[in-house]
Amino acid sequence: MSFSNLDLVNECDSFPYYQTNPSLYAASLSTYYSLRVHGHDYPLGYLLPSVAQVFHNVPHWDLDSTQRTLTLIAGHNADERSEAVRQTLLALRKTGHFKVLEKWRDELYAVYGRNKELLFRVERSASPLLGVVTYGVHMTAYVRVPEEEGGMKIWIPRRAKTKQTYGGMLDNAVAGGMASGETPLECLVRECAEEASLPEDVVRARVKAAGTVTYFYIRTEKAGGETGLMQPECQYVYDIELPVDVVPRPGDDEVEEFYLWSVEEVKAALARGEFKPNCALVMLDFFVRHGVLTAENEEDYIEIVARCHRKLEFPTL
Amino acid sequence: MSFSNLDLVNECDSFPYYQTNPSLYAASLSTYYSLRVHGHDYPLGYLLPSVAQVFHNVPHWDLDSTQRTLTLIAGHNADERSEAVRQTLLALRKTGHFKVLEKWRDELYAVYGRNKELLFRVERSASPLLGVVTYGVHMTAYVRVPEEEGGMKIWIPRRAKTKQTYGGMLDNAVAGGMASGETPLECLVRECAEEASLPEDVVRARVKAAGTVTYFYIRTEKAGGETGLMQPECQYVYDIELPVDVVPRPGDDEVEEFYLWSVEEVKAALARGEFKPNCALVMLDFFVRHGVLTAENEEDYIEIVARCHRKLEFPTL
Repeated sequence: MSFSNLDLVNECDSFPYYQTNPSLYAASLSTYYSLRVHGHDYPLGYLLPSVAQVFHNVPHWDLDSTQRTLTLIAGHNADERSEAVRQTLLALRKTGHFKVLEKWRDELYAVYGRNKELLFRVERSASPLLGVVTYGVHMTAYVRVPEEEGGMKIWIPRRAKTKQTYGGMLDNAVAGGMASGETPLECLVRECAEEASLPEDVVRARVKAAGTVTYFYIRTEKAGGETGLMQPECQYVYDIELPVDVVPRPGDDEVEEFYLWSVEEVKAALARGEFKPNCALVMLDFFVRHGVLTAENEEDYIEIVARCHRKLEFPTL
Repeated sequence: MSFSNLDLVNECDSFPYYQTNPSLYAASLSTYYSLRVHGHDYPLGYLLPSVAQVFHNVPHWDLDSTQRTLTLIAGHNADERSEAVRQTLLALRKTGHFKVLEKWRDELYAVYGRNKELLFRVERSASPLLGVVTYGVHMTAYVRVPEEEGGMKIWIPRRAKTKQTYGGMLDNAVAGGMASGETPLECLVRECAEEASLPEDVVRARVKAAGTVTYFYIRTEKAGGETGLMQPECQYVYDIELPVDVVPRPGDDEVEEFYLWSVEEVKAALARGEFKPNCALVMLDFFVRHGVLTAENEEDYIEIVARCHRKLEFPTL
């Protein structure tokens, strides 16, 4: 089985588009519940009916089965709302009803409103239940080599086989979720040390912000836990050109090893479907920005570029 | 008057989004006619009612005021359809009804179907009447300077004041429309010679493909001709780092002069609204890809990146 680059995009950005398939989009929306916060009359995420119905008669929440909305009605500010969400999720976790809550991480993700104001914080493992936008950082690390050797080699880590999610799959050099209160760059510097043992001074001197990759993922069994949960995501994308003598090394038990691969080797691994879905998307965006993929060698070029930068229907930071 | 970067995006990508404003989007769609080709049951572009109604009882076309569709019914292949479109447009041009047709250019743009097949060709000046997707190339040329001088300077041309469209505004180093049958790279090499007198060997050795910028523009008076016409566009984006001794020079009377500006000077000109709208978008995309704009210094970062890469609702190449 060989995957085209567009196949890889379709796997990660799997929620239908209104623009190209209005009937499928409408059918999806009429199935799902939309998450709201009282006083903020717009969706913050989508929930499966099987998830929304669990909030029936739960304190702090109003479930409207006619409008298909789940509204957080507790609290007058972000702290009060966050506490209400925390209480609900701790109670749900105790019941053992949702598998994703078994991976409780004690990390808080931020959910923003239309004016970029913090509405509430939510435990990381619970964010796909609510279907809210989450944020992360992904960095591609590469080394310049002579043009006749392909111009660059790319550092690619393999995730530990024991990792609960996407175990054994390929990843971007450094990637991590952005906790509430962190800036993207601070998050990246922290993850560079934790995941790849890259010294802070090297990172700060060499790293280059290169945009965002946004997509709307529907979780499959590879993600672990319930399938079909909706995960609209924004990854801040960074590049770093490393000197040959700076070698990324696993800093924790999440990475098995780092490979230094040619562009052709990375392309082959992508085609084998070995990359974690959103890491494949970040890799494709890197290839587009660096002129590896072009209009002349990739027939789905325009589609791939647009799909790596989806405009989400929920407010973003 | 100072423009934020998001203001500049809004000016160029001005067609409403279903995702964030479904009611405005629906109201727009119920106003416009959609262009179709017989046997291809999907929209290829949107037309103003005032434009569509002119096609009433015109040979080769079927106007359906109930479905609000204008369908090209002539021809069984691209050549036959193109000839029918040409005959219609030549006749319309003679009537003097549409101002945009006074700028007839004898250049053909290609319109593609869902399988990337050529459906028909259309005279460039007429493409905004039909509201079809058009393609172009935009290249940013820059020179490396020491970090203490800002790291790079950027070549910025000013359009001739006599130019019918966006006269006197700032542009990207090289930009041009892609004629039917051209590849993006061939188009770029040709435009580099014509517009900036850049030698072909320098361009081929140094130019780097860097993605696409896609947006949905609604024409204003600055574009000349009828206003309100819809122009969904895809620009293939290129960067070129030039040596200090390669100086772009106007190759025709379309460019007045080239400036070599610092990033700060370019930012200031953007904020003054001096750039042609789609050139501003290409400049913002360049700044994002080169780490000039970051999540830390641009509050609308995520929105800007997504909006520079709109997924259009029409088939693209």
